[in-house]
Amino acid sequence: MTPAPISFSHKSHRTSDSPIAFFIQQAIENPHLISLAAGLVDEPSLPVEPVAAAVAQILSTTDSARAALQYGSTQGLHSLREKALNLVCEADGVKPSELNLSTKDVVLTTGSQQLLYLLGELLLDPGDIVITEAPSYFVYHAVLESMDVRVLTVPMDEHGMNTDALEERLKHLEHTNQLDRVKLIYTVDYFQNPTGLTLTLARRQHLLELAQRFSKKHRILVLEDAAYRELRFDGPDLPSIKSFDERNEFVISTYTFSKPCAPGLKTGYGIMPREFIQPLLNLKGNHDFGSCNFVQHIIDQLLETGAYDRHVKQLRSVYKHKRDVMRDALEQQFGDLEGASWTNPQGGFYFWLTLPDEVNTGPDGELVKVAVREGVIYVPGEFGHVAVEGKIPNNEARLCYGVVEPDEIPEAIRRLRAAVDAVVRRPVMV
Amino acid sequence: MTPAPISFSHKSHRTSDSPIAFFIQQAIENPHLISLAAGLVDEPSLPVEPVAAAVAQILSTTDSARAALQYGSTQGLHSLREKALNLVCEADGVKPSELNLSTKDVVLTTGSQQLLYLLGELLLDPGDIVITEAPSYFVYHAVLESMDVRVLTVPMDEHGMNTDALEERLKHLEHTNQLDRVKLIYTVDYFQNPTGLTLTLARRQHLLELAQRFSKKHRILVLEDAAYRELRFDGPDLPSIKSFDERNEFVISTYTFSKPCAPGLKTGYGIMPREFIQPLLNLKGNHDFGSCNFVQHIIDQLLETGAYDRHVKQLRSVYKHKRDVMRDALEQQFGDLEGASWTNPQGGFYFWLTLPDEVNTGPDGELVKVAVREGVIYVPGEFGHVAVEGKIPNNEARLCYGVVEPDEIPEAIRRLRAAVDAVVRRPVMV
Repeated sequence: MTPAPISFSHKSHRTSDSPIAFFIQQAIENPHLISLAAGLVDEPSLPVEPVAAAVAQILSTTDSARAALQYGSTQGLHSLREKALNLVCEADGVKPSELNLSTKDVVLTTGSQQLLYLLGELLLDPGDIVITEAPSYFVYHAVLESMDVRVLTVPMDEHGMNTDALEERLKHLEHTNQLDRVKLIYTVDYFQNPTGLTLTLARRQHLLELAQRFSKKHRILVLEDAAYRELRFDGPDLPSIKSFDERNEFVISTYTFSKPCAPGLKTGYGIMPREFIQPLLNLKGNHDFGSCNFVQHIIDQLLETGAYDRHVKQLRSVYKHKRDVMRDALEQQFGDLEGASWTNPQGGFYFWLTLPDEVNTGPDGELVKVAVREGVIYVPGEFGHVAVEGKIPNNEARLCYGVVEPDEIPEAIRRLRAAVDAVVRRPVMV
Repeated sequence: MTPAPISFSHKSHRTSDSPIAFFIQQAIENPHLISLAAGLVDEPSLPVEPVAAAVAQILSTTDSARAALQYGSTQGLHSLREKALNLVCEADGVKPSELNLSTKDVVLTTGSQQLLYLLGELLLDPGDIVITEAPSYFVYHAVLESMDVRVLTVPMDEHGMNTDALEERLKHLEHTNQLDRVKLIYTVDYFQNPTGLTLTLARRQHLLELAQRFSKKHRILVLEDAAYRELRFDGPDLPSIKSFDERNEFVISTYTFSKPCAPGLKTGYGIMPREFIQPLLNLKGNHDFGSCNFVQHIIDQLLETGAYDRHVKQLRSVYKHKRDVMRDALEQQFGDLEGASWTNPQGGFYFWLTLPDEVNTGPDGELVKVAVREGVIYVPGEFGHVAVEGKIPNNEARLCYGVVEPDEIPEAIRRLRAAVDAVVRRPVMV
């Protein structure tokens, strides 16, 4: 006898499968595939010896071993919160106190992803509005969809989010009496996932100024997702948007140790206005009353000994090399293709490739099938767009050089070009 | 200038501070206090050497080191899911296939707490009904409150949840046309937090039968929180409720490695009907796309080498000794007090002390203040009760022997009796 059906929640019905599940499955089923889809990190450079040394150190004394193996706190290890805050403030060339910040304003989470989720729960009711970049981080869009939130987008150009367009957007929302639903402006402002683009200095200031100016009856927060910031290999660092928020009022910044250290340690952190802390800890208390404590002690030790800094420095050259190889390969393979263009990331993991209009890169298009047959896979660009506002471009692709070996990159790009040629030269057969 | 106020979500407003925050603060401010409130684990027995050996092993080969430091999967490490399932099935004396179970039905989470939260999000809409024990695990009640769910309770006696009362409750809900809102029956069925009570074999079967019988238009699930199961030191193990759910349809069981291994590794798991898996992974994908991977590899290694089994065996004798010491101290200090009684846990961490009716153990009562002055702290029993249904008993206390040293226990109980005497002998002065 079949039992009565399970009655799932409304939220569950709004929570969809990850769009890239298909691509992960493809990679498992086709071991010859070179994946430019996976957002994994470079493997040979994973900090094996530093982590081994850190664990040995932690477990060598009774006090530190017990502290690491016992429950931690909901907010996270104090000394790591302090180091994380200093890391960000040093990059911004300020003292925490100059930004009205202390370790009390820092929370450690299960990757920065958990913080994005928690902040959504903390701020957003159904029908509220979040403004994101077009395109943006697709897992964040999935979070917002599950929360029944309206996502409005602002176009990007080579300088990142177009803040003039954001200003127009906010004015229009004000004139149509919708400003009271706008809660957050979300930006991945360093080497964005998925485009690799970075928000310029002037636009950082403009973005904050807009959040301040349009915070009339309630505060509009800027959610600055700086996951890739430390992985810059070209040019000088740019100050965070947070660094302009001198009284710690409008900007929540999220960071992660996954990209610059090791994803297996799954630890992220956020720096935010003090008023968020207690509500956030109450919520996190219900979620898990604290992320994994042991790995917080490991990362704290890596920062303490300088192993973390050395590791980040090494990673920058690893990813710079991969970026160079992929850039050269794109130039060589796609340089002659009219209508093709790509970004040039100065850090992080991602190229954003735009193909001629007639090449449908989407999951139901022909390119993805031919590419799999050729032995390469990418993330369709349309996953980064939201469908609510008119037509979504379907001729874009995210190419990740995170985990792929440098010597596989030219072959991967060659296969991709072969797939494009196969699609362009003949009519679509479905 | 003060910025415009932050507009938090409705959910945030329903998410309250942990009631024990006050008690944690007391313990910090009064280092002479002996805390019987904290639910921490025994410290001298934390598995320091086994964890050190496991990490050394994992990081000694390139493949295993990379696997542990790279991203894991949303569902969690396959080999650990397999071992976790086998651990439970061996305790139940069955093969996984006999219960229609495979590793596909297991999910690893950030402690079992995260699973409780995720399952709530997956199943519960505002106004839905969850039935819990009175008293029950107060953090779970906080989760349900934040989800705007109705909590109905069933009384307990020395045999655990009174399932006859549950049956009456369900019949009444059916007669009043509320059955369609009942989603879950939650039980902590081994050495319950907070009472230390265990559900008997006959009642386990009755509970499942009730869930099946009252699953008319939709399925009523049993959420079996077995966090303390492995820490049994008296008598034979009892089969899980899950072990009677032969087709894997009605019972979700949650377990944790925090209590039987190390809370710092913060890893729990659930075993559940297959239909839950994809919706749960979709949701967990938004939360964090996988809990900490590195610690999953550590626990997998501890299980692989047998270190885990040896550790659990050791813990049983550690906690048995503490239970014995606390039981003797209670007998000695409270044996002559009319109206005082306490449970006798056969495993886990908790005694439940009932004091004479006139002793108010609550956070606003006099006892807690006098106890702090005497140098001991406990968790007020009323935190385990929900206020929705009539008067809450306020003469109970949870006494935890998890982290306290055995030689401090008699003194802690002596102080508690002194506090009770001080309160009983004189009128309340506020």
